Amino acid sequence: MNFQDKVKNKASGIVVYGITPPKAGTNPDKVKEIASKQMARLSHLDLDGLILYDIQDEESRTSVERPFPFMETLDGLEYSQQYLHELSIPNIIYRSVGKYSEAELSEFLTHPGMSKNGTVFVGAASKDQAVTLNMKQAYALKASVNKNMIMGGVTIPERHLTKGDEHIRVFEKIAQGCDFFVSQGVYDVNATKSFLSDYYYYGQEHDIPLVPILLTLTPCGSPKTLDFMKWLGISIPRWLETELIHSQDILNQSVDVCVQSWNEIKAFADEKNIPIGVNIESVATRKVEIDASIDLYHRIKETL
Amino acid sequence: MNFQDKVKNKASGIVVYGITPPKAGTNPDKVKEIASKQMARLSHLDLDGLILYDIQDEESRTSVERPFPFMETLDGLEYSQQYLHELSIPNIIYRSVGKYSEAELSEFLTHPGMSKNGTVFVGAASKDQAVTLNMKQAYALKASVNKNMIMGGVTIPERHLTKGDEHIRVFEKIAQGCDFFVSQGVYDVNATKSFLSDYYYYGQEHDIPLVPILLTLTPCGSPKTLDFMKWLGISIPRWLETELIHSQDILNQSVDVCVQSWNEIKAFADEKNIPIGVNIESVATRKVEIDASIDLYHRIKETL
Repeated sequence: MNFQDKVKNKASGIVVYGITPPKAGTNPDKVKEIASKQMARLSHLDLDGLILYDIQDEESRTSVERPFPFMETLDGLEYSQQYLHELSIPNIIYRSVGKYSEAELSEFLTHPGMSKNGTVFVGAASKDQAVTLNMKQAYALKASVNKNMIMGGVTIPERHLTKGDEHIRVFEKIAQGCDFFVSQGVYDVNATKSFLSDYYYYGQEHDIPLVPILLTLTPCGSPKTLDFMKWLGISIPRWLETELIHSQDILNQSVDVCVQSWNEIKAFADEKNIPIGVNIESVATRKVEIDASIDLYHRIKETL
Repeated sequence: MNFQDKVKNKASGIVVYGITPPKAGTNPDKVKEIASKQMARLSHLDLDGLILYDIQDEESRTSVERPFPFMETLDGLEYSQQYLHELSIPNIIYRSVGKYSEAELSEFLTHPGMSKNGTVFVGAASKDQAVTLNMKQAYALKASVNKNMIMGGVTIPERHLTKGDEHIRVFEKIAQGCDFFVSQGVYDVNATKSFLSDYYYYGQEHDIPLVPILLTLTPCGSPKTLDFMKWLGISIPRWLETELIHSQDILNQSVDVCVQSWNEIKAFADEKNIPIGVNIESVATRKVEIDASIDLYHRIKETL
């Protein structure tokens, strides 16, 4: 079954991989080289889809200095079309909607190259960010110009621990057309289970079918990557942070932790038939960390 | 090995059971009957010790109404001496030190009936509680009148999540004579692991041997018991509270959860040689809940 059908069938076990396009201004030969490497790494994997992030400068969200510098990237759709066409899996192209005009977003949504692809809309990083389109407008536009395109939303289980309404946000996005969700990086099993638990019971009470939630798993290969994950808003239990910092092999231990977390969450979700899947990524660009994300893919696949 | 030797050897795997003496003013025949039942339940178990709590009215700690009414109980030492002598295991008799004069506490610490027993000092429930002796004075008194008596302290891993210094408090109490610790009821695995992790690394860095931490496990047989546990300050992850409330069999599910939590914490602690043990209790007095605590004992014993 392809990605679109799996999503429409609200299937469990969807596995995607997430990448960020090369930075803007990269020499085309270099872009080609990067794309070849990415395709070589991913082409032999049994992935349901490839996520291409659309990162935005989130400096308005936090006053803490970004551990890795922010860099504008190539446009996800262009990169996908020009460089990744040999990779025969659907691309899920993110759109930080506040960066685009209505005409631009409309063109993207009706682009012939998007027929087998999907998208995920991302809202502003904070209330203070100046935006062209807000999420409500973007969802309305999408519903009017291309109702059938598979569309995902972002969910942040960590937010659920303090606000307790993440499941409500998710159902509101489902009502506006979201067919699946991609979580923030999961290192806090309790936050994820707490969100899934409320998602499940709210769905039951209001008789709303649950759509797939893809949990993002990402290895952590250094204290700097750990800082970056925390900067991104990923919550890490205190003991786990201490363990990783003291670890002789932080990278492998983080992969073990991701697999354990996945197994624990999967046992919880399977018992209730909550459809969950996985999005694997490496937030760092070092080769060892990317390789670890591929190991993580194989270890997750074994559980499915 | 007996309880005292296990504690002195800083052994892992100590298992004790905690009870509250019958309420003050109970007719002696009724007390005898209660004691017989308790002994019948516990005498065939392979326990290292029996904890007798010394509960105090904690109304100064919280403005939330206590789900079960507070009742003065019989004195733990008197109850132990007069009614539980057939139970041939050491008793660990709690003392809420703020309730006693220096002379009373001194008499308790040098009482001949305490020779094979141990004690745990408990401080005021809040800063606003009027006390006769504070913890520092009580520890000093104990050191001067009976240095050798085994003494435990109370630890609250939940506090570690917000304050981050629970391990420091524990080392301060070790310096003042504590030989072991008893935790608050464990339903938040992350809080406990976070505390144990900092306890371990601080001990390593300062070359201080770790003393046994007895983790309190308590079944939960009803939403009212759940409220009471929360009132007592036990932190329960949101998903778990939701699961227990929706459960067809809250009591058995809570026992399963306790066993899972114990296994997860034990795996963590064993890897680092952190000495941990278990204190099993029932915060509720219903027979089914007490029976479940005995089931829990057997399931924990299987893991040791």
